[in-house]
Amino acid sequence: MFATRSEYDRGVNTFSPEGRLFQVEYAIEAIKLGSTAIAIKTKEGVVLAVEKRATSPLMDSSSLEKIAEIDAHIGCAVSGLTADAWTMVEHGRAECQNHYFTYNEPMPVLSCTSSLCDLAMSFAGEGEKRMSRPFGVALLVGGKDDDGYHLVHTDPSGTAMQYKAKAIGSGSEGAQTALQEEYREDLTLKEAETLALKTLKAVMEEKVNVTNVDVARIAPNYVKYSDPEIQEIIDRL
Amino acid sequence: MFATRSEYDRGVNTFSPEGRLFQVEYAIEAIKLGSTAIAIKTKEGVVLAVEKRATSPLMDSSSLEKIAEIDAHIGCAVSGLTADAWTMVEHGRAECQNHYFTYNEPMPVLSCTSSLCDLAMSFAGEGEKRMSRPFGVALLVGGKDDDGYHLVHTDPSGTAMQYKAKAIGSGSEGAQTALQEEYREDLTLKEAETLALKTLKAVMEEKVNVTNVDVARIAPNYVKYSDPEIQEIIDRL
Amino acid sequence: MFATRSEYDRGVNTFSPEGRLFQVEYAIEAIKLGSTAIAIKTKEGVVLAVEKRATSPLMDSSSLEKIAEIDAHIGCAVSGLTADAWTMVEHGRAECQNHYFTYNEPMPVLSCTSSLCDLAMSFAGEGEKRMSRPFGVALLVGGKDDDGYHLVHTDPSGTAMQYKAKAIGSGSEGAQTALQEEYREDLTLKEAETLALKTLKAVMEEKVNVTNVDVARIAPNYVKYSDPEIQEIIDRL
Amino acid sequence: MFATRSEYDRGVNTFSPEGRLFQVEYAIEAIKLGSTAIAIKTKEGVVLAVEKRATSPLMDSSSLEKIAEIDAHIGCAVSGLTADAWTMVEHGRAECQNHYFTYNEPMPVLSCTSSLCDLAMSFAGEGEKRMSRPFGVALLVGGKDDDGYHLVHTDPSGTAMQYKAKAIGSGSEGAQTALQEEYREDLTLKEAETLALKTLKAVMEEKVNVTNVDVARIAPNYVKYSDPEIQEIIDRL
Amino acid sequence: MFATRSEYDRGVNTFSPEGRLFQVEYAIEAIKLGSTAIAIKTKEGVVLAVEKRATSPLMDSSSLEKIAEIDAHIGCAVSGLTADAWTMVEHGRAECQNHYFTYNEPMPVLSCTSSLCDLAMSFAGEGEKRMSRPFGVALLVGGKDDDGYHLVHTDPSGTAMQYKAKAIGSGSEGAQTALQEEYREDLTLKEAETLALKTLKAVMEEKVNVTNVDVARIAPNYVKYSDPEIQEIIDRL
Amino acid sequence: MFATRSEYDRGVNTFSPEGRLFQVEYAIEAIKLGSTAIAIKTKEGVVLAVEKRATSPLMDSSSLEKIAEIDAHIGCAVSGLTADAWTMVEHGRAECQNHYFTYNEPMPVLSCTSSLCDLAMSFAGEGEKRMSRPFGVALLVGGKDDDGYHLVHTDPSGTAMQYKAKAIGSGSEGAQTALQEEYREDLTLKEAETLALKTLKAVMEEKVNVTNVDVARIAPNYVKYSDPEIQEIIDRL
Amino acid sequence: MFATRSEYDRGVNTFSPEGRLFQVEYAIEAIKLGSTAIAIKTKEGVVLAVEKRATSPLMDSSSLEKIAEIDAHIGCAVSGLTADAWTMVEHGRAECQNHYFTYNEPMPVLSCTSSLCDLAMSFAGEGEKRMSRPFGVALLVGGKDDDGYHLVHTDPSGTAMQYKAKAIGSGSEGAQTALQEEYREDLTLKEAETLALKTLKAVMEEKVNVTNVDVARIAPNYVKYSDPEIQEIIDRL
Repeated sequence: MFATRSEYDRGVNTFSPEGRLFQVEYAIEAIKLGSTAIAIKTKEGVVLAVEKRATSPLMDSSSLEKIAEIDAHIGCAVSGLTADAWTMVEHGRAECQNHYFTYNEPMPVLSCTSSLCDLAMSFAGEGEKRMSRPFGVALLVGGKDDDGYHLVHTDPSGTAMQYKAKAIGSGSEGAQTALQEEYREDLTLKEAETLALKTLKAVMEEKVNVTNVDVARIAPNYVKYSDPEIQEIIDRL
Repeated sequence: MFATRSEYDRGVNTFSPEGRLFQVEYAIEAIKLGSTAIAIKTKEGVVLAVEKRATSPLMDSSSLEKIAEIDAHIGCAVSGLTADAWTMVEHGRAECQNHYFTYNEPMPVLSCTSSLCDLAMSFAGEGEKRMSRPFGVALLVGGKDDDGYHLVHTDPSGTAMQYKAKAIGSGSEGAQTALQEEYREDLTLKEAETLALKTLKAVMEEKVNVTNVDVARIAPNYVKYSDPEIQEIIDRL
Repeated sequence: MFATRSEYDRGVNTFSPEGRLFQVEYAIEAIKLGSTAIAIKTKEGVVLAVEKRATSPLMDSSSLEKIAEIDAHIGCAVSGLTADAWTMVEHGRAECQNHYFTYNEPMPVLSCTSSLCDLAMSFAGEGEKRMSRPFGVALLVGGKDDDGYHLVHTDPSGTAMQYKAKAIGSGSEGAQTALQEEYREDLTLKEAETLALKTLKAVMEEKVNVTNVDVARIAPNYVKYSDPEIQEIIDRL
Repeated sequence: MFATRSEYDRGVNTFSPEGRLFQVEYAIEAIKLGSTAIAIKTKEGVVLAVEKRATSPLMDSSSLEKIAEIDAHIGCAVSGLTADAWTMVEHGRAECQNHYFTYNEPMPVLSCTSSLCDLAMSFAGEGEKRMSRPFGVALLVGGKDDDGYHLVHTDPSGTAMQYKAKAIGSGSEGAQTALQEEYREDLTLKEAETLALKTLKAVMEEKVNVTNVDVARIAPNYVKYSDPEIQEIIDRL
Repeated sequence: MFATRSEYDRGVNTFSPEGRLFQVEYAIEAIKLGSTAIAIKTKEGVVLAVEKRATSPLMDSSSLEKIAEIDAHIGCAVSGLTADAWTMVEHGRAECQNHYFTYNEPMPVLSCTSSLCDLAMSFAGEGEKRMSRPFGVALLVGGKDDDGYHLVHTDPSGTAMQYKAKAIGSGSEGAQTALQEEYREDLTLKEAETLALKTLKAVMEEKVNVTNVDVARIAPNYVKYSDPEIQEIIDRL
Repeated sequence: MFATRSEYDRGVNTFSPEGRLFQVEYAIEAIKLGSTAIAIKTKEGVVLAVEKRATSPLMDSSSLEKIAEIDAHIGCAVSGLTADAWTMVEHGRAECQNHYFTYNEPMPVLSCTSSLCDLAMSFAGEGEKRMSRPFGVALLVGGKDDDGYHLVHTDPSGTAMQYKAKAIGSGSEGAQTALQEEYREDLTLKEAETLALKTLKAVMEEKVNVTNVDVARIAPNYVKYSDPEIQEIIDRL
Repeated sequence: MFATRSEYDRGVNTFSPEGRLFQVEYAIEAIKLGSTAIAIKTKEGVVLAVEKRATSPLMDSSSLEKIAEIDAHIGCAVSGLTADAWTMVEHGRAECQNHYFTYNEPMPVLSCTSSLCDLAMSFAGEGEKRMSRPFGVALLVGGKDDDGYHLVHTDPSGTAMQYKAKAIGSGSEGAQTALQEEYREDLTLKEAETLALKTLKAVMEEKVNVTNVDVARIAPNYVKYSDPEIQEIIDRL
């Protein structure tokens, strides 16, 4: 059976007899090798929390950033291929700038994620924009606009889905189950911070501390937490 | 025998010795993995009903939309690859806008579906517009123009067929049989709503409720049903 | 022996050691999967008759059209891949319009079929116009110009041949034999109508009725028959 | 041994270890599947004679033309793929027109065949003009210019050779032997007509008659023979 | 299992079923064949030390340079394919010049490494910039800007990571372990020089001397050490 | 062992593990299938002599020309693929014309052969000029310029070598040995004519006569020998 | 094991799992099939000496040149594919001319070799400059500029290395060992001439004479030795 599959998964953008696109599925697989990231949406804002995996104790932890500001009102956590992630983040930043200069208003969150999906799809798109492989990265984009808070998950197929709470990366399976059990619509931002780190802690191999996790919120603006702020949340656990 | 087939289905656009185009057939297969969508045409209008499959309870059901307005007088239900679907819907919207600005009249429904089919075929077309794989999505397009109501089914081969009632997606086989048994030319719009949800209910694994189905009508304008309106139809079943 | 053939038929445009182009032959094979179409040329005009195969009783029979007007004096019946057929028909229509605007006269029938063949061949042509596979469609083009009536058969190789009577599609073999036996140069248009439907009836699995066949004539202008007109022919059988 | 050959003949333009170009040889093979054509050069002019093979008795014999005028002083007989043949003939016509408009004189015969060979070679040529397969057609080009009469044979490799008498197509082997035995430098045009049809008759499966052969002469202008003229030659046999 | 892998690693930019990009991993492997390079960041500056492997005693040791100045405030040590290394170094130099002319300030270190990573990624990028293979080189970039000292490691995947101390090349595994044991945040530049050469000495097959190692510092400007300066450090060991 | 080779010779321009370019070697093999050509350089001029192989007695021997004038002071004999040969000859003619118009002097012989080699190499060259296979032809170019007489041999690899006497084509092995034995620096042009035909005679299957050989000299201008002149040389043998 | 390698060496520019680029290694292998070339740098200048291998006694030895002037102050000896060698030499000449016209000074030797390496690497480069295979040639470039004498070896990977003395080609292994044993920093130019020819003599199959070796010096300008000058060196041996 494997021999048969291999005939279809070699072509970067070919349907298998069952109607599947293997290269996109394999790119999604690449994300499962990445570090875990968690996002929780509350009425007061969106919390992003990520694991920072240092492969060497001499690595600057600042180099392991998996959380980034896209615009003042939009931030994201990433998992998967680092280099692909920054290409997407920079694309999002440019799109937000363009929107602001054109319309003189912050870019709506869904317009921003839509433009990120267009980039992700472009590998399968038309004419000159065709890339040779899908982007091997997933994003959890949190943002605030006139329609309130949004938490959007984008994947290598160029699909954007809105979630109340979502985990991606190597620990996503366990984390998502935990989120489903504990998530309540009426979580405060503070409770969401606690839930995010608690969930992350459960799926991480190392003990959680200020150097191996990063936390940020969009409430309503993007703020990355300082080490003492993260320690405060850890202490609450 | 399989070894022989595999030599032809790898090329995205190659005839097999029997004159078949396997990649297009596999793309049609991709649609059978999608959620079920049903459309019924009556003299009073077209009803669209779709199943919304949440893979996680934390997913925003608004993200699962499989029904979309193309223009005030045209709407559609989709099944298959989500990202491909929105590419087609946005293409249809742009074409309708262009038609209106050029001719100062709403785009005829068949012109609109024809332009969607041109996009679907472009993967097999000439020169620079060539895409690397067929679009893995089918549409049920309902609309009203000077020729009355239309219900058009488009598939990955770029073929558009008009139907009185049509089901697509994973439950399409059972649903189509049910539609054939119960469809009558003189259905009222209300009866069509009931028939659509009844048919959907029969092929869905979950119990039908306001969060896992969406309903819309074009009669003569596109209107998406609110939760209470959907509940009212469910109550009628 | 098959293993050897398969090495040549994978390339879309490669000669086999015996000097054959397999992809073009396979495209011709695709037409044998299509519905049957029959055309008969008489001194009074050309008659086109086609089978309409509905895959579902809820399908609008208007969607199954296999007969089309190209210009007032030219019409055609098609068999094979539907989407390819309409691409060719629309190409023919545009060419006729261009001819009229340039020369202020109706396009000669053979100029029109020649331009359709150029399109069919373009997959094997030079430079940018190269398509990735042959068109999987055959046309029976009937028309009238200063040289009288013409009945032209075009196939995926881009070859145009004139016939007195010709059948294409899944029932073409039996139908062509029947035509050869019964065709006479001095057929009236009325007799040709009867012969066309009688031949179609013989190769169709279903009983002939006004919903599963279409008939048109070019005498000297293209006219599609109404249901009563078709019924009248059926009654004559 | 065959396995080895197949590695080289798949590439359209690759040398085998013995220095052969298989795709071009296979294209030459395609011509051996075509109808037989014969050309004889005399001091009084060039005679062209071809077999017309109707695959159906309802086919218009006018559609089977294998002889064509290129310019008033140049004509040709073709064998091989019909669609490729007309592409070459039309190329030759355009070149002759261009020459006339540029130099105000009829195009020399060898210039004309040279431009046909350039087209044939272009599949193996440089840059954008590259075709995906050789032309599967051979031409016997007869013409008259200031250097007298010419009979030129062109093949898929883009090679032009002058002959006194030459046969191509399925019956070429037997016909060429017959021509070698009976050809004399001092043939009159009338004797050449007789020799051409006599030779064609010997290699055709059917009995020769006015509907299954075509004859033309360039003496000094291209003239296609009418049915009575052909019958007269047949009667002479 | 190997047979399966080989299907994915042949494509330069294709995901394997496990979500891996083999060509990038193999390029990283190329670096392990290179000479060892070590970089240590202290509060007083960054020290770079590399092994120079002469394949012949007649080779000019000046040709074996693996340390280069990018700008007055940025230097780097390289390991892997020499020709690829210089392409990257020259790209970095041009970028620094451009930055200076545009903004009238030295290029920030992270902007410089970011532009190096863009080049590395371009093989997997969009449109015309696509290279046919990843760059087979890793860089240890040391620099000083308004944010203090930086030590950045870039690899073929286009990923940049900041380190306190980092070893690359054939001896990197042993060297990195040694660095982890001996590195202290409060190292002086002099101590860093000693540690760098001591670590290099431990992984080199030959005895360390002024001809087979190179040392440089960025403190705050790039200075390459003369032979006596290097000898002084060797004497300290 | 053969299986291994076949992996490298399929790519038109790929090195084998032993550093060989098989496609170029196979193109050189194509020349060994061609007719024999001989060139001899003397102090009085260069003599070219070629075999003309008629595949049919009805072939015009004028069509078998393997000797051509490139410019008044340069001529060549060719062996290999005829169509490729004329492409090269015409390229040489154009280059000579260009040189004359630009510099107002005849093109030096080595500049001319250098431009022929550039064309031969262009299949392996950069960017848009890339051909899909090597030219399957060798040339013996004789010429006179300010540096005296030159005899240059060019082959499919784009290599030009000067010779005193050289044979190419199917009989080249035997002919070259004969030339080595009999060549003297002080040959007169007349003696060279005799040696050339004598050598050709020894390797030809047929008896030498005025219809199956061609002779030309560059002394100092290109002159093709008439039949009586050739007969005179034959009589001398 | 071989089966595995062959999967990687077919792609012209693909890393093997061990991080190797086989096509470049095979191109380096091509040089080992070439004639031997030797270069020795002294304080008084650089000596170049090459073997000339005539495949036929009738070959003009002037055609076998493996030594060339690039500019008045730069010369080179080559080994490998002749046609590739001249492409590089001509590239070097053009670059030197450009430098002189732009900066009004002779091109520094290392700038010149750097531009030769850029050409060699361009096969693996970006965008339109991509060649289909590496250059199969190595150069020994000798030159003099403001920094004194340079001897640079360039290979197909685009790597330039400076040497005191270096041998390339089929006899390079033995020659390099000999050079290592006998080379002294204080060699006079005359002693270097003797050493070069002595070393060449040791690895050549034929006896050294003025027709089968070439010698040149850059001291400080490029001078090719006349036959008597070469004989004088031979006499010294």
